Amino acid sequence: MRTIAVNTPSASYSVLIGDGLLATLADRLHKLLGGKLPRLFVVTSPEIWALWSERFLASFARRGAEPIVLFLPSGEAKKRMSSVETLAGQLAAVGADRDSLILAFGGGVVGDLAGFLAAIYMRGIRYVQVPTTFLAQVDSSLGGKTGVNLVHGKNLIGSFHHPLAVYADTAVLQTLPPEQLRAGLQESIKAGVIYDARLFAYMEEHAAAALASDPETLAHIVAASVRVKADVVSKDERESGLRMILNYGHTVGHAIEAATSYKQLLHGEAVAWGMIAALRIARQRNKIQPSQAERIEKLILQYGPLPAINAPATKLAALTAGDKKNRSGVRRFILPVRIGKTEIVTDVSPEELLSAIEQMLQLARRKAAR
Amino acid sequence: MRTIAVNTPSASYSVLIGDGLLATLADRLHKLLGGKLPRLFVVTSPEIWALWSERFLASFARRGAEPIVLFLPSGEAKKRMSSVETLAGQLAAVGADRDSLILAFGGGVVGDLAGFLAAIYMRGIRYVQVPTTFLAQVDSSLGGKTGVNLVHGKNLIGSFHHPLAVYADTAVLQTLPPEQLRAGLQESIKAGVIYDARLFAYMEEHAAAALASDPETLAHIVAASVRVKADVVSKDERESGLRMILNYGHTVGHAIEAATSYKQLLHGEAVAWGMIAALRIARQRNKIQPSQAERIEKLILQYGPLPAINAPATKLAALTAGDKKNRSGVRRFILPVRIGKTEIVTDVSPEELLSAIEQMLQLARRKAAR
Repeated sequence: MRTIAVNTPSASYSVLIGDGLLATLADRLHKLLGGKLPRLFVVTSPEIWALWSERFLASFARRGAEPIVLFLPSGEAKKRMSSVETLAGQLAAVGADRDSLILAFGGGVVGDLAGFLAAIYMRGIRYVQVPTTFLAQVDSSLGGKTGVNLVHGKNLIGSFHHPLAVYADTAVLQTLPPEQLRAGLQESIKAGVIYDARLFAYMEEHAAAALASDPETLAHIVAASVRVKADVVSKDERESGLRMILNYGHTVGHAIEAATSYKQLLHGEAVAWGMIAALRIARQRNKIQPSQAERIEKLILQYGPLPAINAPATKLAALTAGDKKNRSGVRRFILPVRIGKTEIVTDVSPEELLSAIEQMLQLARRKAAR
Repeated sequence: MRTIAVNTPSASYSVLIGDGLLATLADRLHKLLGGKLPRLFVVTSPEIWALWSERFLASFARRGAEPIVLFLPSGEAKKRMSSVETLAGQLAAVGADRDSLILAFGGGVVGDLAGFLAAIYMRGIRYVQVPTTFLAQVDSSLGGKTGVNLVHGKNLIGSFHHPLAVYADTAVLQTLPPEQLRAGLQESIKAGVIYDARLFAYMEEHAAAALASDPETLAHIVAASVRVKADVVSKDERESGLRMILNYGHTVGHAIEAATSYKQLLHGEAVAWGMIAALRIARQRNKIQPSQAERIEKLILQYGPLPAINAPATKLAALTAGDKKNRSGVRRFILPVRIGKTEIVTDVSPEELLSAIEQMLQLARRKAAR
């Protein structure tokens, strides 16, 4: 069991990472909440519930607690206001009140949406994250960012609302489809590139074991990645400065997702290509030594194969204009300057961006698997 | 011009109250924002815009600023998630970013909804309130409560998000329909009952002038009411204690609104009846002297006439169970113990509540106008 603390001005909580954690979930919650369990509402997907409900419910049954289960249809397409409204209506219909607790049990979509539901139901109730995908365990479950998509872009609607705790059971990763594991591991590569050269080196050395789902290797990578995010978020909760580095690869990544209607690439896969695009900008500017840049690009591709990108460069460039990180029309990019360190720049010209995107697309045509 | 400060742990801002304030709005904003105007988005209703757009826009035009106007159809029925999503889509389509500013120009529905839009667009952007109804000026525009309705109840979805400032132009009240003015004045009676015996006495003495829309009388009542709310909210931002007293009359008031589908009574009218119901509970318990209770009931009815209530007592009693103030099933009531002071109780029995509601309905059958 590994415990990592998140301490921000508005909330302090722990991320627990362990093999088989689900078996003791109710006991841990009971203790966290001072010796009693409130009314519990699980937000999950039918797929996750089919696989893990028995193990999830066992510890609650021993305490005589019966969580009410609310289902969210799977997939990014359901991450919309209408889903939140439907779930809020279900909460209201069964009398959930301000003391009730939501358990977000699923991947990033479930976590973001259930967290947002908790943020706005009766102007905010408590919730915990029980992430089931690699990506959710290392990234989306902590930090308090919650939200849903608009047709105009991802996560354009949302709130900052921290969970009471995050319980990441790495045993659940064993039922994850291989491409979801690989896509999630890209966010760990990101954590290494922006902040933790040792994590990056570990992922270079243990690529085969990680990609084969070796439990101890995955647990190590999850914990190291969570430590990066917990550290960054603790220092800059509201993304006024440092936290922006977590968006490395996300500006172009989001554009790729939007251009392909969120259907052809997983989030981590789009971010992987986005990391390569930002890396190319850094290379063009001689911000990073070629040997360092090559190690980064090599590791990203090694944790592939990544899917192709069916979108023209001009469209992708145009779509970066809608990025949430932009302020008063200024486009921000996170550029790696060496493994473990980045720089934030605001003066990337349209030509520079287009050239980097074209290089990325060229690479994608040569290397992409699907 | 009167300026009243709101100081909470999460925000400090001013409420400005004055006759003709709209004429200098852009200048005040320009100064507040450190000498420049960001991109501005006005959320308003077609009715308000038809009456006041010229006066609203004049000061911006002098500064070369052109706010983009987004319309929300009037009425409580449009205070829903789908309206927020539509407006958020319009913001995204024209490239509103985290530096943009929303101006909520309208009554309570516009203010609550535009404030919620600001709270969740890109996880929170800035907004100012420019309230146009008496109710919005004295109550809903300050305190940071924003939100929308579910079919299951009012304001069940929302956020705490404070405005940068509130600009209340009392000149705008002159175009308010008389029943809206009267309904709004009920919230000032509430402020007097719960916190400010001098305001209560002023409203007794100046009832005729207030109901005839005398500008100076209204400005005095608005300012005194705002002072009550600003004081209470400054002491208890998140409604953990004191702030609950602002909900006097609202438990049964919300039930009346829900039972009549938000169509037959204005919010202030429903709250007026709700204040009478809570007062009857206080009388049954001998919490308040009969002479004090009679003064309160008399003033509420004097600021009528109030509409009838087409709902059975049992339905109203049942609907109070969904109140947001309830915690783990405990029903809270704010009872006046004398003019200017209340007590919060959690042990109102179903029989007690039903009896008070029946007395209220009996009074409504005798006194109601419509």
